[in-house]
This record gives sequence, structure tokens and C-alpha cells, in this order.
Amino acid sequence: MITTSITKLFKIKYPIVQGGMVWVSGYKLAAAVSNAGGLGLIGSGSMHPDVLREHIQKCKKSTDKPFGVNIPLLYPNIEEVMDIVVKEGVKIVFTSAGNPKLWTSFLKKHGIIVVHVVSSVKFALKAQETGVDAVVAEGFEAGGHNGREESTSFTLIPTVSEKLSIPVIAAGGIATGKGMLAAMVLGASGVQIGSRFAVCKESSAHVNFKNKVLEISEGDTVLTLKELAPVRMIKNEFYQKIAALKDRGKDIDSLRELLGKRRLKKGIFEGDLVEGMLEIGQVASMIDKIESAKEIVKEIINAYTKAKKSLLEN
Amino acid sequence: MITTSITKLFKIKYPIVQGGMVWVSGYKLAAAVSNAGGLGLIGSGSMHPDVLREHIQKCKKSTDKPFGVNIPLLYPNIEEVMDIVVKEGVKIVFTSAGNPKLWTSFLKKHGIIVVHVVSSVKFALKAQETGVDAVVAEGFEAGGHNGREESTSFTLIPTVSEKLSIPVIAAGGIATGKGMLAAMVLGASGVQIGSRFAVCKESSAHVNFKNKVLEISEGDTVLTLKELAPVRMIKNEFYQKIAALKDRGKDIDSLRELLGKRRLKKGIFEGDLVEGMLEIGQVASMIDKIESAKEIVKEIINAYTKAKKSLLEN
Repeated sequence: MITTSITKLFKIKYPIVQGGMVWVSGYKLAAAVSNAGGLGLIGSGSMHPDVLREHIQKCKKSTDKPFGVNIPLLYPNIEEVMDIVVKEGVKIVFTSAGNPKLWTSFLKKHGIIVVHVVSSVKFALKAQETGVDAVVAEGFEAGGHNGREESTSFTLIPTVSEKLSIPVIAAGGIATGKGMLAAMVLGASGVQIGSRFAVCKESSAHVNFKNKVLEISEGDTVLTLKELAPVRMIKNEFYQKIAALKDRGKDIDSLRELLGKRRLKKGIFEGDLVEGMLEIGQVASMIDKIESAKEIVKEIINAYTKAKKSLLEN
Repeated sequence: MITTSITKLFKIKYPIVQGGMVWVSGYKLAAAVSNAGGLGLIGSGSMHPDVLREHIQKCKKSTDKPFGVNIPLLYPNIEEVMDIVVKEGVKIVFTSAGNPKLWTSFLKKHGIIVVHVVSSVKFALKAQETGVDAVVAEGFEAGGHNGREESTSFTLIPTVSEKLSIPVIAAGGIATGKGMLAAMVLGASGVQIGSRFAVCKESSAHVNFKNKVLEISEGDTVLTLKELAPVRMIKNEFYQKIAALKDRGKDIDSLRELLGKRRLKKGIFEGDLVEGMLEIGQVASMIDKIESAKEIVKEIINAYTKAKKSLLEN
């Protein structure tokens, strides 16, 4: 057991949160992480409200440990989603991609612990003002949507931790016990891990996607689409089309047309490695096997304990 | 005193290297850092060979501690520079921006300790093969020239440290004792610090540049000029011109023409904040005062020791 402000807040054994990831983290992954002593999150971003309700109900049946739901605030059926998490008695909600002012007080009024995902000190302070219980500070190296400031975990974690009075969960570039210890040295009270869980056994991602992630090496992901909203993805054929379009100059309409719809589902859930959008973090270059969520949590905690011990002996 | 493979290699008290920076690190800064127990580096990149000889001679008079010279391998008068470091009895050379194969064996033959700066595991392994004694692994967040892989310190330090058998010095995003401890948790045996020393009392940078660095906040630097060679700089008016040019499409000739010559001298040495190129690391947002090199080294070591102790107590 490791005790930090984050483990106390969520009443969990280890300060490890599994990032809520669209097309990746359904109830199977969330429950597996929670059962292993971390905090599992259902990623609602890719779910119709009815599907989300079903996943929450199944998650409650699959674990008696705390779990949460990640809700991107730009979700079209946001009212319905908020209604579901309240009615289903969800205890923890992570909000992202939007203004935390809109829903924090509503959720808090229903006794829900609220955490907001930020990529800058500026937005971290704004989130704190709205009354959230903690923030996830997500560095430039993280997969998926990201900030325009491009602050990396090495600069973001200490600055957010220093400026805020609420606990900080570090995300971006973390997949190992050493990474977790480094994040905590920099001021975090816990870590959110995405990529390593994205390719684990309980992830809903397509096997093609998982195998592609295991294959990639340094420099194989890139933060792109900055003209719309910055996203880190694998440099596959679809990305090459984005790059070629950008070489011809700034043209947001063409970029939006190329992006189209359902690229993420195509890539991650259907396994189309050519035309799909393959969101993953830079740290994917360090991941080389498919494990169970339980094995991952255990390995990270062992490595964390070992790293801490070896540091204190030197 | 802190003992690591890096302090043993250089015979220094603390595993802190001051990055060799053009227009910033002459003998005054290098000697001050060495006298404080770290390793000072003269940045030869902005010096004519005669000026470099003078700085080496003055550095020897200003400190009896080990110091080194940083040599960008693309330097036009490279033969003359190599001849000078050998004749002046320089004991430590950091090479960067070029192929380490060209000069490592020459320097080693003259009994010089050689360290090469890399931004990827691929180049780190190549550098190791040429027989260098250590590498500096420089993350995406570092100021000045940088790699195309955009690997951040959080992903670069552990991967390079794991793959190499020689010591790794971490650079990029590090300016504090906590940052130093985090880098060492991730596998480094020491750190190279640039930005914080760039604005210290002994730095040759113009006071306008130093004050500008103190002012900037998160998101105020950017890695740009990727079409030529990626460089991190402050988003000043000169950068806005680069961005505007790029919005019109990929046009390397126009970009090269805009860049022109002496932009770096203009910005850093002459203090032209509008037309000059203002290279600095992302971590500049955490730096808010001008101190002496001695104060910086002392503060970092105190904070490092405190961070390590607090880790032990928790």
C-alpha cells in the first residue's frame, strides 16, 4: 500500500489511475484496474448514453472497489450523461476537454468527487477555482488530445504542483515504476497511465492497434492537428496525409474535411492502421508486451518500490 | 558531495554540468560553475578560434577545478578548434550538432574525456560506438537545437539509460533540485542545466535577454524551424514571422532567407528582443531571478538533498 492525498481521496490502495480512453476503456478495463488496487475509469467519450449506463452497471457488478467515469465536456449528449452518472451512483468523475465551470458544482452537489484534466498551470488554476478535488496535469508526451502550450511533464508537473493547493495527478510519459517515482519527486500525488493500459488484455482496442503500439519506436508518434485541436497519434498513412496537406499551407477547412468523422473508431476499435487515427502516447516506444491490468499494476508498484529503495541506498 | 559515475568521470563534487551555450557561456560562467563544484563548459560555437584560445587560457587562470569546452561539430573552423583544445590541454570536450565519429578517436588519443550530445536512443547508441565516455540526452523541452523525434525528458532519459552502458547526463526541463532528483530516478547519472545558468550573473547574455527570460511563462517558447533544424526559442516578433511564413506552406528557401545570419548574436548577445533569435528552454517559465552560478549550484544541491530526504520520510 502507498498512501498519498490521491489514495486517500479515492480510497484506493495505489496512486495509479488508468486514463479514461475512448474505444479502449470500457467496464472490463476499469474494473480490472480497480480490482488491482488502482482507479479504473470508464471512458464515456465513445459511448452512447445507453451504452455508458450498461458499462457502469457492469462495472459495479465486476468490482466492489472505487472506479470512475471520464466525461469529455464537449460530448453532445452531456446532460443525459451527467444524469446517468448521478442516477447510477457513480462516485468519481474525471472531466476533460471543456470548461470545468459548467458541471463541477452540479456533480459536487450530488456528492461526486470531481477531477479535471488540464495541460497548463493557467487551466489548472481555473479548474481549482471551480471546486474540483484534484487535477490531472497532462504533459506534451501524452497520447490523444493535448494542450497548445506543449509543456512537457518535466516542466508541467512541478509548476502545477507548486501553484495548486489541491492534489495533482501526473500524466504523459509515465508507464513504469521509475516514471511514477519521478512524477512524485516532481510534486505529483499520483499518476494517470494511459498507453500501457491501452494495450493490455482488458482494453477494448483492436488487436491490430495493440500490435502496432508494441512495434513503434521513438519518434513514431507526433502532436499534430494543432490548427484544430492538438492530438498525439502514430505517424501512419493517415498522418502522412495530414502532413502533406499542411505542407501546402494553412487550410483549416481541408484539414477538417480530411479528418472527417469516426477516424478514431476506425483506427483503435476496428483496427484500420492505414485510414484510422491511432492515438497513443510517446511512452508507447517503451511498451513491448500485452499484459493483464493486474500484472501491469503489480509490476509498476514493484518497480516503484525498488527504485525508491535503490535511491535511498545511494 | 554527491558521488555518481559522472562525478567520478569528471572528478567533480556535484553531478551538475552547465550547458555550453553560444553567446552565453564564456570563461566567466564556466569557471564560476566549476568553482562551485559543478562542471563548467565554454561554449565555443560563437567564438573565433583566437577568442576560444583566450577563453580557455582565462578559464585555467580562474579555476583550478575541471572544466570543459563544448564544440558543435559543424563549426566551420573545426580543425583549428580541435588543435586549440589539444594544445591548451583541455581535459573535457562535449561535442554536439554533428557526427561523433569524426573527432572522438582524435580527442581520445590526446587523453581527452569526450561526451556527445544526443536527442534520441538511436544517436546515443551511435555515439557510444564511437567510444565517447558519456552522452548528454537532451529532451524536447531543452532550449536551442533539438531532435526531430521530439522525445521529452520523461521518455528519453529512461530509454537512453537502459540501452547504454556508459553514463547518461540528462538535459531539457531541468533547473531545480527536484528536477535533478527526478532525472536520476529515471536513470541519469547527472544533469546538464542550460536555461538557469543562461540568466545568471556570470552569463555573457545581454541584460535584455536575461530580463525577457525571467518574464516568460508557460507556452512562451516553441520548437520551430523543423524544416531546417529544429530549434526551441521564445515566441517573439521574429518567431511570429517564421510562423506567418509557414502558414503559407512549406518553402525552405524563404525560411532560410528569413533566418539569415547572426540572429542568435543579435538576440542573446546584443539584446534585440524583436529581430533576434531568443533560444531558451521550456523550463525558463520556472526561472524568476538572476543569481550567481554559485548560488544556483548551492540552491539546487540543497533542494535535491531535501527532496531526497522527504522521499525517505514518506
